[in-house]
Parts: sequence; C-alpha cells; structure tokens
Amino acid sequence: MTPETRRPVLVVGSVALDSVRSPHGEARGALGGSAIYFSIAASYFTDVNLVGVVGEDFPTEGIRILSRRGVNLEGLTHAAGKTFAWSAVYNEDLGERTTLQTDLNVFETYHPKIPAAYRRAPFVFLANINPELQLEVLSQIERPRLVVCDTMNLWIDFQRTELLKVLARVDVAFFNSDEARQITGEHNILKAAAAIARLGPRRVIVKKGEHGVLMVSGSDLFSLPAYPLEVVRDPTGAGDAFAGGFVGSLACAPRIDSASCRRSLLYGTVIASYAVEGFGVDRIKDLSAKGIERRYRSLIEHARIPDSAQGAGEFSLRRAR
Amino acid sequence: MTPETRRPVLVVGSVALDSVRSPHGEARGALGGSAIYFSIAASYFTDVNLVGVVGEDFPTEGIRILSRRGVNLEGLTHAAGKTFAWSAVYNEDLGERTTLQTDLNVFETYHPKIPAAYRRAPFVFLANINPELQLEVLSQIERPRLVVCDTMNLWIDFQRTELLKVLARVDVAFFNSDEARQITGEHNILKAAAAIARLGPRRVIVKKGEHGVLMVSGSDLFSLPAYPLEVVRDPTGAGDAFAGGFVGSLACAPRIDSASCRRSLLYGTVIASYAVEGFGVDRIKDLSAKGIERRYRSLIEHARIPDSAQGAGEFSLRRAR
Repeated sequence: MTPETRRPVLVVGSVALDSVRSPHGEARGALGGSAIYFSIAASYFTDVNLVGVVGEDFPTEGIRILSRRGVNLEGLTHAAGKTFAWSAVYNEDLGERTTLQTDLNVFETYHPKIPAAYRRAPFVFLANINPELQLEVLSQIERPRLVVCDTMNLWIDFQRTELLKVLARVDVAFFNSDEARQITGEHNILKAAAAIARLGPRRVIVKKGEHGVLMVSGSDLFSLPAYPLEVVRDPTGAGDAFAGGFVGSLACAPRIDSASCRRSLLYGTVIASYAVEGFGVDRIKDLSAKGIERRYRSLIEHARIPDSAQGAGEFSLRRAR
Repeated sequence: MTPETRRPVLVVGSVALDSVRSPHGEARGALGGSAIYFSIAASYFTDVNLVGVVGEDFPTEGIRILSRRGVNLEGLTHAAGKTFAWSAVYNEDLGERTTLQTDLNVFETYHPKIPAAYRRAPFVFLANINPELQLEVLSQIERPRLVVCDTMNLWIDFQRTELLKVLARVDVAFFNSDEARQITGEHNILKAAAAIARLGPRRVIVKKGEHGVLMVSGSDLFSLPAYPLEVVRDPTGAGDAFAGGFVGSLACAPRIDSASCRRSLLYGTVIASYAVEGFGVDRIKDLSAKGIERRYRSLIEHARIPDSAQGAGEFSLRRAR
C-alpha cells in the first residue's frame, strides 16, 4: 500500500522512568511506560500521536528517542514535579516480577487532554492506565475507526465498574492469560476470551508470553506462537510493544478483518521479540525495516503448515477391520 | 497415497488398568498405559504391532477394543499375576496430577520379546518404559527406518545413563517441557531442545500441553498450537495419543522430512484433542475418519497465516524522520 493510506494512531498511556533488574542485567531510570513502548513500536508502521505526562526530571534523551522515531509529542504534557517512576525485579527464569516501588508523581493528578488535532484519530490505543482516565479519553474522541484497550490486574480488582464501561466501548481488548482468567473467573482461556467478548469487544487478544497469542472473534480463533528466542533479558513493556506493532500495522491495512488482524499479530510478535531482547527500549528504538521483515518471514516459516498434495490430509485414514 | 505404502508401526510400552479422578468425573480399572493410547491413535493411520504384557485380570473388553481397531496382539504377553495398575487424581484446573498408586505387577519382571515378524518393523515407538527395556527392544530390531522414543521424569532421575544410551540411538525424541528442562538443566525451551538434539536424536519434539508443541531439527523450528478446546476432562494418555497420531501418520508419508513431520504433528494434535475430551480411551476408541479430517482442517485454519498481496509484509515499513 502507499504511504498516503497509513492512518495515524493515537495512544494515551503512561510515560515512566523505570528501574529494572533481571538476572541478565539492570537499568536505572530508563525510558519506560506503556505509551512509550507502544509509540516506539507503532512508529515503524505509521504516525503516532502520544498523549501522556512527564515531570521536570524527564531526560532530554527520552524526548530525543521519541523524536527520532517521529512520534508526535504535542500531547505530551510537561508538569511540575517528578515523572512517574517504577522499579521491579525479575526472578531467575523471568517468570515472576516483583514490583519494588511505584511513585505516581505527576501521574497522580493527571487527566489526559486530547489535542484538537488528535480528536478524530481513526486508530486509538488506550494503554494500561486507570479505566477512569480511559473513559475520559473516550469522551474526547470523535468517531474513531478502531479503539483498542489494554489493562492490568490492579484495575480488574479495584476499578472493575469503570473497566467494564471501557470494555463496552472498545473494539479490541488485550489481556494476558492471568488477567483474562481474573476478570471472567474462567480458567479455560477460550471460555475466558469468549466471556470477555460478551462484555463488549468484538475481538479479544490474549497474550500468553512465551506461549504466543490467541485471538478470538466470534467463531474465528487464531493462535500464533511467540517468536523463538534463546535469550530474553527484560520482559518489561513486551505487551505494549506487541500492541504497538499490532495497532500500527493494522492502521496501514486496507481493511480490518481476520486476515489483516492475523498479519498484524505477527508484526506485534516481531516487535515484542526485539523488546524482550534488550533492557527497556534499548533494542526497539533503532530497528531496521529489513530486520523487522526478516523476523516476520522467519515467524511465518516457524508457524507454517505445509500443504500436502491431496489437500488437507495426505492419505485416506485407515479404517478398523 | 495408496494403502500399500502404509508401513506398519511397532510399539513397545505399558498396558495398564488405570483409575483416574478429575473434577469432571472418574474411571476405575479402565484400559490405559502408554502402548494402549499410542496403538489406538496410530491405528487410524496404519497397522500397529503392539508389544507389552497383561495379567490374568485383563478384561476381555480391553482385547475387544484393540481388536476392533485392528491392533495386532501377537506380541501381547499374557502373564500369571495382575496387570500393571495405576491410579491418580487431577487438581481443579487439571494442571497437576498426583499419583496415588503404582502397582507394577506383571510389568515388574517383564522383558519385551519382539516377535520374529515384527523385528524388521520400519517404524518403532519406544513408549515411556524403563530405558533398560527400551535398550532391550533396540537390540532385537533390525534396520528400522525411524525410531521414536518417549520417557518420563522418573527415568531422567534414576536411569539417566541408560536413557542417554537410548537417546544416542533414536531418530526422534519426545519430551514434555518439564522433562526437557530436567534432562538438560536449560530453562529456555529452545536451548533445552537443542541440548537434547546433541545427545543423539536429530528431531526433538517438546510437548507443551495446552500450549501446543515445538519441533526442533537443526535450524528448522516449528511451533503448532494445541487444538482449541473448551472442555478437557482427563489429560491421561494425551502425550501417547499425540505420539500415536504423529508416528502413525508419518508411517504413511512418502518421505520423512520437515513437511511430513509438521503435518504429522497436526494429526498427533488432533488425536490428542480427542483423547483429553474423554476419560481413558473412551473418546479415541471409535473415531471417524471424517471427524479426524474435520479437526485437521480446523486446526490448519486455527494456525493459518493469511498471505498478503505484497508478499511477506503488506506495506513498506515507515522510516523515522
């Protein structure tokens, strides 16, 4: 497709300074937050309009990284005080994360204000923030083509009513497996996804980490494995980078349908695979189009089911005597 | 392909009477054991020669089920004493199984004797039994085309030396994720599979349960999701049914290569999906060819990545400013 048909994406979410320790290393006060991972990931596909807030301590280097990726920062509020700061440590196999500290700082009193130029954004991503704020965003935007949301266990526990209101108004909802089980009470992940769909979104995407992703839309089910990696250094932001690749790629598709959503999940998977290979945004801030396409093709090959000469099956099944 | 090119499969493994309880029900003294699940599964594809042992209490109904599936029982020894008996209980979400009792009975002193007619079997499955017995089988067979083995945590812990001898002599090895990590000490499943390949097998298949399967052969990696199921009643024997579908289907393929192995993993996945829907062999003992092919096509659709008009990617990736 031609560049003119790329549609811009609006993202509203957290901008943070992260301190993360994993068995593979450590980062301190590094650029992070859901809107950051999403924006950088989506920037490989289309124009990104970022809405969020930073404090006075936000480093120039952060602005430089976003600018280099062409992310529009008109909606980034600079407030008096300190930037949202978060620190966490991963266990040996990266399967568990312990949050050490969450200082909301300027985020505590933040209410997103969507610049006039962004209000008719066709593609909107409500990153993982308080669903009350997600509702405030929805009240400011006009006739979006596709609204996608993410959330977390905290809001499922403590802001359930508001979260249900958000879900009733979005087209696509992202959940990880635990969250999908938590909000529905269904252990089976297919049943959980179907139950979420009954809350509103016509497409539910369950992120299963190293086990890939499941997309459910009515009777259309799709499973995609994760990109095969031998080394994972820092899983922080993987879900947001995944969403950025997905929404960014979808914003370039001629149609939003099962086929374009499936392909966009591949792009999400590819960007997420880079994200977890480095600390923070280190690895995703300077990707090459060639590298992204190489992993895309490699993922297709990884999941490819070869055709057989005789159609579906290769032989007539044997019957019992 | 024509029926004449189906090659028979030899399986040596346990034949048991299982008592299993799950939140979905209960079975007592039901037909079970690795060789049984494998044989019934493989019987939908090709001729199966079963080698194992039963005691005097083995029910006629068990023989009838196997005979109806055309499984050759010349190698089934009837010994004085009781049949191998096993009982277990699953937890609420079926994620954990507690073995209540294992009575080896006639299996305790059993040494497999391969009937002369089976010794040149082209396809051999060494089901999960003591690796010492697996080695005894290998010493009795002549020039097999493909030898596939399975094992379990017990042998990795207590018969490691013998198990390593088996792995050095097989073409394909099945492991579940935990076993693959246990035998190699590698947490990353790709690294674990590669480490197992260095022990001998040129193809390593890691069963990940509800998360599907990973096949590694040199640089050729393949991931396939599990068949999507909303209800799982009894996971017992799923791995053996999976192996039966895989080896049985492969025994009908014109060539053993990446494509036929990938397709055979689909058949394994389909048969395993039936296995877990019922208790014991209830669900897999009377499958229809039509039903198997329907799930096969449905699984292809579930994992299908649609082509895009412009080849791999749908658009030229956007470059930063």
